[in-house]
Amino acid sequence: MITAIVYGDGETTEYDDLASARAAAGTTWIHATEVTDAELDAIADEFDIHGLAIDDLGNDVRAKTEEFPDHTFVLLKTATLARGETTFREEVATSPVGIFLGDDWIVSVTTGAAPVVERVRRAVASGDERLLHRGADFTAYRIIDVVVDDYFDLLDRIEDEIEAIEEDVLETPDRATLERINSVRRELLSFRKQVWPAREAVGVLARGDPDEVDPDTEKYFRDVYDHLVQIADLTETYRDLVSGARDIYLNALSQSTNEVMKTLTVVATIFIPLTFVAGVYGMNFDPAASPYNMPELGWGYGYPAVLVVMALIAVAMAAHFRRRGYI
Amino acid sequence: MITAIVYGDGETTEYDDLASARAAAGTTWIHATEVTDAELDAIADEFDIHGLAIDDLGNDVRAKTEEFPDHTFVLLKTATLARGETTFREEVATSPVGIFLGDDWIVSVTTGAAPVVERVRRAVASGDERLLHRGADFTAYRIIDVVVDDYFDLLDRIEDEIEAIEEDVLETPDRATLERINSVRRELLSFRKQVWPAREAVGVLARGDPDEVDPDTEKYFRDVYDHLVQIADLTETYRDLVSGARDIYLNALSQSTNEVMKTLTVVATIFIPLTFVAGVYGMNFDPAASPYNMPELGWGYGYPAVLVVMALIAVAMAAHFRRRGYI
Amino acid sequence: MITAIVYGDGETTEYDDLASARAAAGTTWIHATEVTDAELDAIADEFDIHGLAIDDLGNDVRAKTEEFPDHTFVLLKTATLARGETTFREEVATSPVGIFLGDDWIVSVTTGAAPVVERVRRAVASGDERLLHRGADFTAYRIIDVVVDDYFDLLDRIEDEIEAIEEDVLETPDRATLERINSVRRELLSFRKQVWPAREAVGVLARGDPDEVDPDTEKYFRDVYDHLVQIADLTETYRDLVSGARDIYLNALSQSTNEVMKTLTVVATIFIPLTFVAGVYGMNFDPAASPYNMPELGWGYGYPAVLVVMALIAVAMAAHFRRRGYI
Amino acid sequence: MITAIVYGDGETTEYDDLASARAAAGTTWIHATEVTDAELDAIADEFDIHGLAIDDLGNDVRAKTEEFPDHTFVLLKTATLARGETTFREEVATSPVGIFLGDDWIVSVTTGAAPVVERVRRAVASGDERLLHRGADFTAYRIIDVVVDDYFDLLDRIEDEIEAIEEDVLETPDRATLERINSVRRELLSFRKQVWPAREAVGVLARGDPDEVDPDTEKYFRDVYDHLVQIADLTETYRDLVSGARDIYLNALSQSTNEVMKTLTVVATIFIPLTFVAGVYGMNFDPAASPYNMPELGWGYGYPAVLVVMALIAVAMAAHFRRRGYI
Amino acid sequence: MITAIVYGDGETTEYDDLASARAAAGTTWIHATEVTDAELDAIADEFDIHGLAIDDLGNDVRAKTEEFPDHTFVLLKTATLARGETTFREEVATSPVGIFLGDDWIVSVTTGAAPVVERVRRAVASGDERLLHRGADFTAYRIIDVVVDDYFDLLDRIEDEIEAIEEDVLETPDRATLERINSVRRELLSFRKQVWPAREAVGVLARGDPDEVDPDTEKYFRDVYDHLVQIADLTETYRDLVSGARDIYLNALSQSTNEVMKTLTVVATIFIPLTFVAGVYGMNFDPAASPYNMPELGWGYGYPAVLVVMALIAVAMAAHFRRRGYI
Repeated sequence: MITAIVYGDGETTEYDDLASARAAAGTTWIHATEVTDAELDAIADEFDIHGLAIDDLGNDVRAKTEEFPDHTFVLLKTATLARGETTFREEVATSPVGIFLGDDWIVSVTTGAAPVVERVRRAVASGDERLLHRGADFTAYRIIDVVVDDYFDLLDRIEDEIEAIEEDVLETPDRATLERINSVRRELLSFRKQVWPAREAVGVLARGDPDEVDPDTEKYFRDVYDHLVQIADLTETYRDLVSGARDIYLNALSQSTNEVMKTLTVVATIFIPLTFVAGVYGMNFDPAASPYNMPELGWGYGYPAVLVVMALIAVAMAAHFRRRGYI
Repeated sequence: MITAIVYGDGETTEYDDLASARAAAGTTWIHATEVTDAELDAIADEFDIHGLAIDDLGNDVRAKTEEFPDHTFVLLKTATLARGETTFREEVATSPVGIFLGDDWIVSVTTGAAPVVERVRRAVASGDERLLHRGADFTAYRIIDVVVDDYFDLLDRIEDEIEAIEEDVLETPDRATLERINSVRRELLSFRKQVWPAREAVGVLARGDPDEVDPDTEKYFRDVYDHLVQIADLTETYRDLVSGARDIYLNALSQSTNEVMKTLTVVATIFIPLTFVAGVYGMNFDPAASPYNMPELGWGYGYPAVLVVMALIAVAMAAHFRRRGYI
Repeated sequence: MITAIVYGDGETTEYDDLASARAAAGTTWIHATEVTDAELDAIADEFDIHGLAIDDLGNDVRAKTEEFPDHTFVLLKTATLARGETTFREEVATSPVGIFLGDDWIVSVTTGAAPVVERVRRAVASGDERLLHRGADFTAYRIIDVVVDDYFDLLDRIEDEIEAIEEDVLETPDRATLERINSVRRELLSFRKQVWPAREAVGVLARGDPDEVDPDTEKYFRDVYDHLVQIADLTETYRDLVSGARDIYLNALSQSTNEVMKTLTVVATIFIPLTFVAGVYGMNFDPAASPYNMPELGWGYGYPAVLVVMALIAVAMAAHFRRRGYI
Repeated sequence: MITAIVYGDGETTEYDDLASARAAAGTTWIHATEVTDAELDAIADEFDIHGLAIDDLGNDVRAKTEEFPDHTFVLLKTATLARGETTFREEVATSPVGIFLGDDWIVSVTTGAAPVVERVRRAVASGDERLLHRGADFTAYRIIDVVVDDYFDLLDRIEDEIEAIEEDVLETPDRATLERINSVRRELLSFRKQVWPAREAVGVLARGDPDEVDPDTEKYFRDVYDHLVQIADLTETYRDLVSGARDIYLNALSQSTNEVMKTLTVVATIFIPLTFVAGVYGMNFDPAASPYNMPELGWGYGYPAVLVVMALIAVAMAAHFRRRGYI
Repeated sequence: MITAIVYGDGETTEYDDLASARAAAGTTWIHATEVTDAELDAIADEFDIHGLAIDDLGNDVRAKTEEFPDHTFVLLKTATLARGETTFREEVATSPVGIFLGDDWIVSVTTGAAPVVERVRRAVASGDERLLHRGADFTAYRIIDVVVDDYFDLLDRIEDEIEAIEEDVLETPDRATLERINSVRRELLSFRKQVWPAREAVGVLARGDPDEVDPDTEKYFRDVYDHLVQIADLTETYRDLVSGARDIYLNALSQSTNEVMKTLTVVATIFIPLTFVAGVYGMNFDPAASPYNMPELGWGYGYPAVLVVMALIAVAMAAHFRRRGYI
């Protein structure tokens, strides 16, 4: 679906025809969503857009800014988290937003529905002062700005997940925690793959390299660029946090093994010697055969004495373990 | 085997003789596969190709672009996974593709059979419009493009393997999983060794440094360059994924040890005290010698009482372990 | 709250009105703390300050230096540790300090109370010689200097915590130690996020890029820049120290598990064989049925002999364990 | 020992005297091996060589290229593996090769015997066409080339060792394996210390910075530079391989501990309950005192029944362990 | 204490007065050790030295080279290991050496006693030819050279410690080893903090940026710079070695745990089944009650048969364990 708007001097007119929209005085904005190949070709013809740029929209290409003789092509990606049964490639779902920026015209193309770009279009339609009085480059800035702002939402969701994992890891660490940790790690890897090229792409605009970017608008692109730097920073920092959480998780496991071992050790080392003592007096040496054969069995206080000895051994061992912090 | 084609104005002619092919009007493409040293020398003589470049084709040299006074030499490598009984060097099998790019001629040389280059040759032979109407540099772009596209296939195979490992590691982690992890890690290391120089080599063409590259063709090389950047990125990301899988594997092992220990601890700490109690009443102190010697043995409910005590101990221990999450 | 001071030739005058303060001869310093939006707008109007810069003060933007046609905007952050129940974002609490630096005027804006800036203002009010005889850029230097000096205090607190952890980890390592380690790690990550952009921002001033910075003042900014480099260095070094502490902690845990195992092994392997021997002589084979059935039981020195054998076994095992360093 | 050769127009003449060798027409090559300080001084005087450069030959200085007003000084190191009882510094034994390159003269100095340089000298002596018809810079290239080619031999030996370790680690991992791993790691660290400066040093020549390097010879130096880049790459990759081998080794240890634990757990948890049951029926409660006291002992099928119960317990436990993959 | 020397044409004169020393023909060297603030001010006044530079001497500032209009300020740090009860900051004790280099004068300032600088002063006093015939920049080089040479001594001590640790870790790894490892790690971190800025500072001189450095002297600074690069390299390499030692240490611990477990497993799994068998024949089933009740007890060869069975079990188990490499 193609919409053509021309605005200037605070007024907005909609056109049906690309050619007359382009010819009209003022800034021409062609916005094409869920576009067909035929529509793309029509736009490309009208605005002399290079075939490679059109191809890039269809293929899974990294964000970039490319300067052509009479226009500049900016390719960005919207990013949404696609949790659940996904492969790595699908972890962060992206959808291309192509912006072709000419002197007094701008063409924006999205292959899917792009609610974020729609927001800017509505701002123009409803007569947003700032947009109507500035050129095509400012409109490009607004579109790029909303796309990048969406990245913050995605990061917020990731941060929430990390906070949840950090609690989880301290309270109930289990196998599922590790899988959550790994899943966030993959999301961050996948997202970072989008952010770095986007940063470079916007950096070109922020430096004002393309002729189509007015020096007054550069500041705005610099602002978006600062946001992307911050996003890239946060991505790295979150990776660090995630690996911190993983360390705590792995440590909890070692700690658990250590405690299990302590339990076993305490119980076994207390009772094994006692059992041995009991075993000794369970031997069947014949006291009748010789006075040296287990005379204890015939003593009057033999049994209580053995019980007391056992109790002393047990208490001594327990005290020893308490001193070493096992119990 | 050497094929010589000259094309221009939409027509294609095959030649038998290098000299007349070069002299003919239009773009001359000499394509040599499974070339002998004698054939190489003949080509080198005809097109004034530097001896060092010829040497590079035979030796295991990194991809590169080198500018010579009257032509540019691009050396790329096709890459195929060579799984199985391989040493590190053989993990990713490579085969050189040399491209010598002159004003109106291009010489492509492969030491083995190169099906990917063959595809481009057939496109020319069958009269591909785009190829026939552009110069030698565009043909070079097409050859480089198919070589690089093949890298994606290799990465796809690696990604499939990583996905398989990630499932494996969650379901049936064993020693073989670790060997698969290490094998993919080696493949990625080996592949990365090819990609980084290739990126630099194509980068030289994308910047349009060599005179033989027409400004109109630069965009196409930039496109290939973007692909190589993406491939390099993916390689790094896959390495991260692989080390993530390894962490989960190692964790699964610790988890397993932890669970084994828990089993042992639960069984041992429940039965060892019970065995001790049974041992006590297995002692042979003589009740006849004194009323203090194991009077329990003569009590009417002695045996049931001991059994009940044992049962209570066992239940108490089991409850304790359940509370601590061991069972 | 807005304060307007004009100073020059060693004298300081306070003004109520922004316009007349600006018009007055000498250096004008407008200092606004806990500022309202209306106050901000008034200042922005008077000094032609760009809307984006004003926006940056309200949003959570990284430190930066931005040059505008007739003034330079420096955004810094004060940083305080916010220990306790915090999420990652809140670990290091920051508050923006905006400095707009013109030819002969400086506007400083803080959204909260800023005791550090207050210190500089008092120095001016009390007639600090150095400040009064130099221009607005020197005042900017002094403000930036006190903000950066505060970073050292924060780092000192972090270093104290690391020293405490290092002792803790050697003496009483437990779960709380790991949480402290992780908390310091997060603080350093969070702090580093502030320091790197601040370094870049001050670097611009140290290079003397903005026209408003006098060549004589560059040296002072270079001094602050050196401090920030040192702070960034320390941050990295502290991260290394923290991970060293974590390694020792994890090692202490392994060591503990190792010692627990040794205890168990020593006790169990000494007594299990002895218990077996006792068990053998507790068997009920009938000596009456055959002379081969446990004749030892009827021997005169059977019992003492078994005790001696047991003692020898125990001593041999203990000696073996001592040799291997278990006890 | 000093040899002086002058060659030009395909002829080679040996000289005894440095001064006349220098004065002679053609390219003068002074080659000094196992040189004494006096000989060095004589050469330095004749060719105006800077004292610092001479000092660098004696001290353990990194490879470098330094340009002096009328000559260029290239310092390289031959490298050999010195396995066995070595400290870290001695792991890779190096020996300096100094090359002083003037307009039409070259002085090569080695403090030890340098068989690799000898190879080039013999090529000249035996009238190698390429060497005789090109200038001093080409001779320098040949010397540098043979030194660098030797690095590949060293890397091949390291690779062989890594392959051996990788097999070792999968088949018979023990403490010696870890020491081999660490030894290769140290060799790679030590070797890398040589390669990086060498790469920089040759890079200066490859860029053709020194006047003494003819543009035609640059290509050859670029070739050597490419080799050094490849060597540096391989060094990094080998380090990765070694750390992969170490991971597998450490994992093998964990796996071993895990299996040991499983064995213990299976045997202990099967027999400990059985021993308990046997212990119960070994108790001496007096059946005569009451009908509740161990009536099982007097039952006709008591013993077989207990044996059957024990067998059932054992089978059930074994089945349980088999299901969990322990046996 | 201030010493003022003026030298030139091979002669050296000592002066008491700064002003006349400066005025005298030849190179003036003012050397101030353990200097008071008043002395510093006197020097600063005489040579127009900037206040910030003086401040840097007193504070803990990183090494640097700063160019002032009429002189260059070089700040270096001597470094000594301060082993024992230190916090991180004190691990490597540093002391500032400030060098102010003018056209024909040099001022060197140290806050403590600086034996290394003293060495250079004595060389001048005793009429060192090289020093007396060259300018102030050469004297600066000599001072910097001795300071940097001292770094090698420090590194040698660290290397000795690493060698000792590497032996320790293979022979008697214990907790103290880990603390030594961590201590060296901290020393290296602390030292690296000194080396990197020193490298940058000397790099400025090696590039000959300051006017006060004669082109002939640049080579000497380049030499010092090469030393610092080598020192920085060694620092990194030593960190790698230390972490290698730590890995071996940790591995030794795992190995120990593994061996402890093997011992326990071998003993327990051999004797537990045997004890069970003994337990069975210790049961008190009444053979009189039924012919099925433990008829073995009445057999003529019952006891020897059981002993033989036990022996066979033990031998089989031992063989099994030997095959698996446990014993």
